[in-house]
Amino acid sequence: MSRPPGRKQDNHKIDWHLPTISSSASAHHMSRELFVLTYGALVAQLCKDYEKDEDVNTCLDRMGYGIGVRLIEDFLARSAVKKCRSYSETAEMIAQVAFKMYLGVTPSVSCTSATGDEFSLILDKNPLVDFVEELPAERASLCYCNLLCGVIRGALEMVHLAAEVTFLQDKLKGDAVTEIGIIFLRKTEDKKHKRNK
Amino acid sequence: MSRPPGRKQDNHKIDWHLPTISSSASAHHMSRELFVLTYGALVAQLCKDYEKDEDVNTCLDRMGYGIGVRLIEDFLARSAVKKCRSYSETAEMIAQVAFKMYLGVTPSVSCTSATGDEFSLILDKNPLVDFVEELPAERASLCYCNLLCGVIRGALEMVHLAAEVTFLQDKLKGDAVTEIGIIFLRKTEDKKHKRNK
Repeated sequence: MSRPPGRKQDNHKIDWHLPTISSSASAHHMSRELFVLTYGALVAQLCKDYEKDEDVNTCLDRMGYGIGVRLIEDFLARSAVKKCRSYSETAEMIAQVAFKMYLGVTPSVSCTSATGDEFSLILDKNPLVDFVEELPAERASLCYCNLLCGVIRGALEMVHLAAEVTFLQDKLKGDAVTEIGIIFLRKTEDKKHKRNK
Repeated sequence: MSRPPGRKQDNHKIDWHLPTISSSASAHHMSRELFVLTYGALVAQLCKDYEKDEDVNTCLDRMGYGIGVRLIEDFLARSAVKKCRSYSETAEMIAQVAFKMYLGVTPSVSCTSATGDEFSLILDKNPLVDFVEELPAERASLCYCNLLCGVIRGALEMVHLAAEVTFLQDKLKGDAVTEIGIIFLRKTEDKKHKRNK
């Protein structure tokens, strides 16, 4: 049933103020607050399910991995980025394109090893913890945003880049910034890994 | 450590194609695919936790309620909408402003009762199920998106509107459309409810 004709004048009275974003631009976009709160509900549920922080962290990382494996296709299709020619370019791509697209923030990137295969993504502002005041005392080892590490790891694996991705610093734990470390595993490592299987 | 000076020319080679959204417009925005996949991980976790679909549905609704109670503040602050003067306006606001803002879609609204207190939000396209093919046979009673009902119920309660919010139809279950029913509970109902406590 559509609006009764007698109420048609309501249309003139309603004064919508949509967010400053055109409808075409917003085709794939949403406000991140619903995501942030839903993510909080997910972490809270896992904290109910698992007593140990380490188990929650592992579960978040594993969930994230599964998400990254599926998200990479969407990322490549919509970002139209070209193939990266170095680990440095890849790290910049994750920060400047992927984080921007999926979380609306752009971490700064720094290379942290002389060999050029270790990088840090520094988040001055982490939107995922917008509604979190602090970790409860009994959850001091929780990596609240560990899903992100899994997402990055899963997505990288789908473009044939093995990596270790972990939180190195976390504002939620009192650190000055939030820092995600990415260590690209070199092909020699891959070979060694395969040999060990 | 910032980029080594010798690599500066990389900046010219990298060809980012950011989504068509300005940085100011995207301050609160993200691509919804990460949300959709994270929501899927949440539902999957609850399906592990609870054997009965009804328990998963109840849990999703309860989580959603908690989210709605917190999200309403963000909604009122950012939408700058004026106070609604009728249930009809409220239902339109949920569809045209809230759904657009938080999920990037606009359901159509229809009034489904002569008394003007029951509405349906019809979603031709439900982004939350973008990555879901179909419900597994053993989960036939799952209301996959039940979180949304809880969010609407919680948010409405914070603006002093009691409502029942449920899925009436669901494309995931083979229905032609996805339909969320909202029944506003009149003040007399509230009084009766209080008396019964």
